[in-house]
Amino acid sequence: MKVGIINVTGYAGAEVARILSEHEEVDIACVTGRSGAGKNISDIFPHLANLDIEISPTLDKSVDFVFSALPHAASAEALKDAINSGIKGVDISADFRIRNLDTYSEWYNVEHPCPELLESSAYGLPELHRSAIKDCQIAANPGCYPTASILGLAPALQAGIIEPEVIVDAKSGVSGAGRGLSLKIHYSEVNENVSAYGLDGHRHMPEISQELDLLSNQHVNLTFLPHLIPMTRGILASCYAPLKNSFIGAAVDLKSEIKDLYRDFYKDERFTHVVDSPPMTKQTLGSNDCVIYPTVDVRAGRLMVISCIDNLVKGAAGQAIQNMNIMCGMPEDLGLTQLAIYP
Amino acid sequence: MKVGIINVTGYAGAEVARILSEHEEVDIACVTGRSGAGKNISDIFPHLANLDIEISPTLDKSVDFVFSALPHAASAEALKDAINSGIKGVDISADFRIRNLDTYSEWYNVEHPCPELLESSAYGLPELHRSAIKDCQIAANPGCYPTASILGLAPALQAGIIEPEVIVDAKSGVSGAGRGLSLKIHYSEVNENVSAYGLDGHRHMPEISQELDLLSNQHVNLTFLPHLIPMTRGILASCYAPLKNSFIGAAVDLKSEIKDLYRDFYKDERFTHVVDSPPMTKQTLGSNDCVIYPTVDVRAGRLMVISCIDNLVKGAAGQAIQNMNIMCGMPEDLGLTQLAIYP
Amino acid sequence: MKVGIINVTGYAGAEVARILSEHEEVDIACVTGRSGAGKNISDIFPHLANLDIEISPTLDKSVDFVFSALPHAASAEALKDAINSGIKGVDISADFRIRNLDTYSEWYNVEHPCPELLESSAYGLPELHRSAIKDCQIAANPGCYPTASILGLAPALQAGIIEPEVIVDAKSGVSGAGRGLSLKIHYSEVNENVSAYGLDGHRHMPEISQELDLLSNQHVNLTFLPHLIPMTRGILASCYAPLKNSFIGAAVDLKSEIKDLYRDFYKDERFTHVVDSPPMTKQTLGSNDCVIYPTVDVRAGRLMVISCIDNLVKGAAGQAIQNMNIMCGMPEDLGLTQLAIYP
Amino acid sequence: MKVGIINVTGYAGAEVARILSEHEEVDIACVTGRSGAGKNISDIFPHLANLDIEISPTLDKSVDFVFSALPHAASAEALKDAINSGIKGVDISADFRIRNLDTYSEWYNVEHPCPELLESSAYGLPELHRSAIKDCQIAANPGCYPTASILGLAPALQAGIIEPEVIVDAKSGVSGAGRGLSLKIHYSEVNENVSAYGLDGHRHMPEISQELDLLSNQHVNLTFLPHLIPMTRGILASCYAPLKNSFIGAAVDLKSEIKDLYRDFYKDERFTHVVDSPPMTKQTLGSNDCVIYPTVDVRAGRLMVISCIDNLVKGAAGQAIQNMNIMCGMPEDLGLTQLAIYP
Repeated sequence: MKVGIINVTGYAGAEVARILSEHEEVDIACVTGRSGAGKNISDIFPHLANLDIEISPTLDKSVDFVFSALPHAASAEALKDAINSGIKGVDISADFRIRNLDTYSEWYNVEHPCPELLESSAYGLPELHRSAIKDCQIAANPGCYPTASILGLAPALQAGIIEPEVIVDAKSGVSGAGRGLSLKIHYSEVNENVSAYGLDGHRHMPEISQELDLLSNQHVNLTFLPHLIPMTRGILASCYAPLKNSFIGAAVDLKSEIKDLYRDFYKDERFTHVVDSPPMTKQTLGSNDCVIYPTVDVRAGRLMVISCIDNLVKGAAGQAIQNMNIMCGMPEDLGLTQLAIYP
Repeated sequence: MKVGIINVTGYAGAEVARILSEHEEVDIACVTGRSGAGKNISDIFPHLANLDIEISPTLDKSVDFVFSALPHAASAEALKDAINSGIKGVDISADFRIRNLDTYSEWYNVEHPCPELLESSAYGLPELHRSAIKDCQIAANPGCYPTASILGLAPALQAGIIEPEVIVDAKSGVSGAGRGLSLKIHYSEVNENVSAYGLDGHRHMPEISQELDLLSNQHVNLTFLPHLIPMTRGILASCYAPLKNSFIGAAVDLKSEIKDLYRDFYKDERFTHVVDSPPMTKQTLGSNDCVIYPTVDVRAGRLMVISCIDNLVKGAAGQAIQNMNIMCGMPEDLGLTQLAIYP
Repeated sequence: MKVGIINVTGYAGAEVARILSEHEEVDIACVTGRSGAGKNISDIFPHLANLDIEISPTLDKSVDFVFSALPHAASAEALKDAINSGIKGVDISADFRIRNLDTYSEWYNVEHPCPELLESSAYGLPELHRSAIKDCQIAANPGCYPTASILGLAPALQAGIIEPEVIVDAKSGVSGAGRGLSLKIHYSEVNENVSAYGLDGHRHMPEISQELDLLSNQHVNLTFLPHLIPMTRGILASCYAPLKNSFIGAAVDLKSEIKDLYRDFYKDERFTHVVDSPPMTKQTLGSNDCVIYPTVDVRAGRLMVISCIDNLVKGAAGQAIQNMNIMCGMPEDLGLTQLAIYP
Repeated sequence: MKVGIINVTGYAGAEVARILSEHEEVDIACVTGRSGAGKNISDIFPHLANLDIEISPTLDKSVDFVFSALPHAASAEALKDAINSGIKGVDISADFRIRNLDTYSEWYNVEHPCPELLESSAYGLPELHRSAIKDCQIAANPGCYPTASILGLAPALQAGIIEPEVIVDAKSGVSGAGRGLSLKIHYSEVNENVSAYGLDGHRHMPEISQELDLLSNQHVNLTFLPHLIPMTRGILASCYAPLKNSFIGAAVDLKSEIKDLYRDFYKDERFTHVVDSPPMTKQTLGSNDCVIYPTVDVRAGRLMVISCIDNLVKGAAGQAIQNMNIMCGMPEDLGLTQLAIYP
């Protein structure tokens, strides 16, 4: 299968290329870049030297499948033609994540470039939308924070054991902010430093909100606060919600019942794992795993869930390839079996 | 004034020595160490070479004031004699922080070594207990997490504008774990990694709880979850609580009213500052400042407060010296005027 | 092929397990650990959970090939039986690297445990000793510093264009120091810090020396100085030597002639690459590559070579598997094709 | 004394402001910035909030002393007027460091803006040029690499015990590259990474060269290679040179004789310390110290010297204030007595 990558020159695009290099059913046939057309990919990313591919100015339409790693709006625009000519694709941007066009416009400050394609898209979180992904033309690859947050809360929300009062306090490595230059992600500013950001509203909030509401069949009152951490990769989402009194009253051992519920929910999943001890982001570095630890603050009657991913793999490129595998009828883990690199 | 430091060989003790070197009213007369007796302090901490002090096996009782940086239980034990002979002191350990002896025993797994001294002690958070500190024999220097958390929540609790349902999600640099060896704080394990810990209960929880209850005159249902961040110094506490409907209903501009309330609460404080943009830990590195940013998640009706300190300064040694200044009638900021080091 | 790993509980051993998980001709049949016998490997290394292997107290002799990742002396001891019963192996420790037994004893403070096996061993640096490795019983996997240093200097020494006056200034991430606890590699001590160590002689010096002398057919006057850098993985060796006047005199363009010479030397190598711009360690993270940049300080008439590897892959586990592939007649890059993870 | 700081909005300028805040004889009367005129300094540097100074578009000429932290060429230009009107100053840029105008033009690609002022300037390395500094109008504050390198080599060169064949392999934190944006110092690119740079010639080379030649009264054949290390502050210079055979032959104990020679050379210095064990950069963080460890590779007959500074203090702002103190007849360590912050 011949695959194209639109905008390989950002971190997510480069990561798609890296992972696909180990995918036995796929050839990277064409890569484009916002910068760097005409250069070899190794001029921009020395670690991809073995791929030895030249960066094209535009997508070669003879590809069978396409990934877009452009920013929002530009991404939908760039995918339009390919999709209309029958090529399936994964959009790593936010363009097809939000089902409500007004919500999209409100948070992204732009009219949606091709609302007509929204219907043929699916929210690309396989653990929750696998069958829709199988049949879609465009998988809207979830944001990195939403991936960790939604997977961390889905079992509890679907089981109806928590009140719809949820707080997600997320910590992210800096690569999530991309390769674009900004003083905020300048080395000397970030190193040996932690800060919260997006206090007036982060774009991943409505995306998380949409999925939590769907899971619980009601509006979940969500606070989402991201933090920038001095590391390159990894997201850890700490999720808090009050357990329903009915659940607390009926439970014999809150912690183990919660763990069973979570384990059961994800029992058939290849990449999402419920673990017995508090996880750390580094145990997912370079892998497509999401590692989840659900527990209870018994004194306070609150569910606490820790959820970890590599933001560029399960939070971007890896999940994109997982979606491609599903859309193309290949084994879901093809090319995605690498273990995390530790330490 | 001649000062002694018990256990100068840990990070907190060394930091007391470092800061006192700039304190014009104080001479470091005697330092002891659990390890290192007989050595010069520079053999253990090269950055303190200029102090040129030998580490004693025991405290020389001719000092006028004493700091103890021993672990809990050992600390009260070591301070006993000095206090009984009329010397005042600051205990950097947890021994005099918890007013309830049963709570102390429950969380620290030990009977309190000298409960009789509890009455002559004060909880050493100057912003809330300044007059008690002035008159006490022992200032119980607050824990690093409690310092950031309590200062972040005090104005809102005292004003009665939030429901007693509080979550503190705290992020700390590794120096808070001390100089003792452990795989968990081994470089290769911590670097490029984030994890939550203390999920079954952290010892700073009852301390925070005690003060929040006191401030609000009722029991606050608190969840406190600390996280280990790949940096050496700094704590950022993210605090969440639902605003009372009565407050929301009466407010014209939630965010600015909250900010005014906080600013007013701390208007006379030298070290605790309410700021206009989200702070970062590094702007406190090496200084005795606590920097607080209160805001509101308007959609969710929740108060969010970000509170930053240097865990070894305002969270330990700096606050200890601030307490000494108060106890000894000196200007509160003597020796503590250094600006943070940035970047 | 059934493979055993002796001491999987250190970083090098765990890395052998991680990489072998992607090797299609190999099953990990047995792993032992100095600690952790009876536990599942995931209890110690969560990132290896998918392997689901129990740690044995001793090696199961039915394996076809063995890796030892024990410290020196213990390693040779542990390999002895397996080798004597006809199983081939790779020793990741130093025991079979030094050909001269006196030199070994002098630097490792111990008599060699099985000098009789030395003859059936080969120095496992494939770029220089491939045919010996093919026929040996034990491949002595080179040290991490020697791998980077020797590969950086080999072309120049073999071509006879430099004086035998060599300085190697090497910078290493902390994982090279292993998982054992020590204040020197405690997070708070290493972070935001750089230091030189081994100033009175580092054990990798005689190993580098042995190979440099061999390459140049004379004694090379070597200074080797390692430095500890605040990162987990990666070695960058900066190598300096005076160019011979005869070479300088005959050259038209020193820099490009040097580059051609290096490129030619490594032209058939799968993992060692001569590059056109100064490399960085991170472009090798997780891969088995050695990336080399040779150039000239024209004013001073000195060769300068920058050589980068991932100390745990090409500097340990990856090279060990490369040696196994050679010893067992498999394609040299089997299981080793993963690209580096960046950023 | 009223002091002005030209370009306070870079790291060096901000650091001058931070340190001066503790200097009892000085008031910061005026600060300018290439960006930020009209803003309060705390809008750009929150850690300087206590200073509460507004950034001016131009220097107020009523100051008694001026620091310029502009880039080269712009700096001399900006200082000209002040100097000509009789105000003394320290130039933190390179403009007055190089005594030879052709060398300056060759390395900085610009004609010197005011060569006529060169005569009234002195190279501001107090350990070597104290009396010239005392009498100069402009102290040319040394570069960060030159400070560490020259101080590391001066005793040996002046004593004539080494051959004029010197290699300086230097490792620097990222703050040395300033606050300007560049992909090379983007967090995700630098973190967990080491690289060499300036392989075709770094601008600090001719500056080091000039001083080494001066010290040894002959041309020293110098190779200088800087490396970028994943930390914010600190420089460690590793210096190598062959000991003269005459010195080796005459010495009884090479290491201790070298140490004595160095100790004697710096015996009256307040900030430059010869130490007994290999230093690390972090023991100088925030302090004006230079810490030097000289030793010998006895096998190879080479001097090895490790020299550490904080690149923004002794390597920039601290040394600038030390120069001001000397030029103004104040105690040399006024305002510079802070100990390093550790860990």
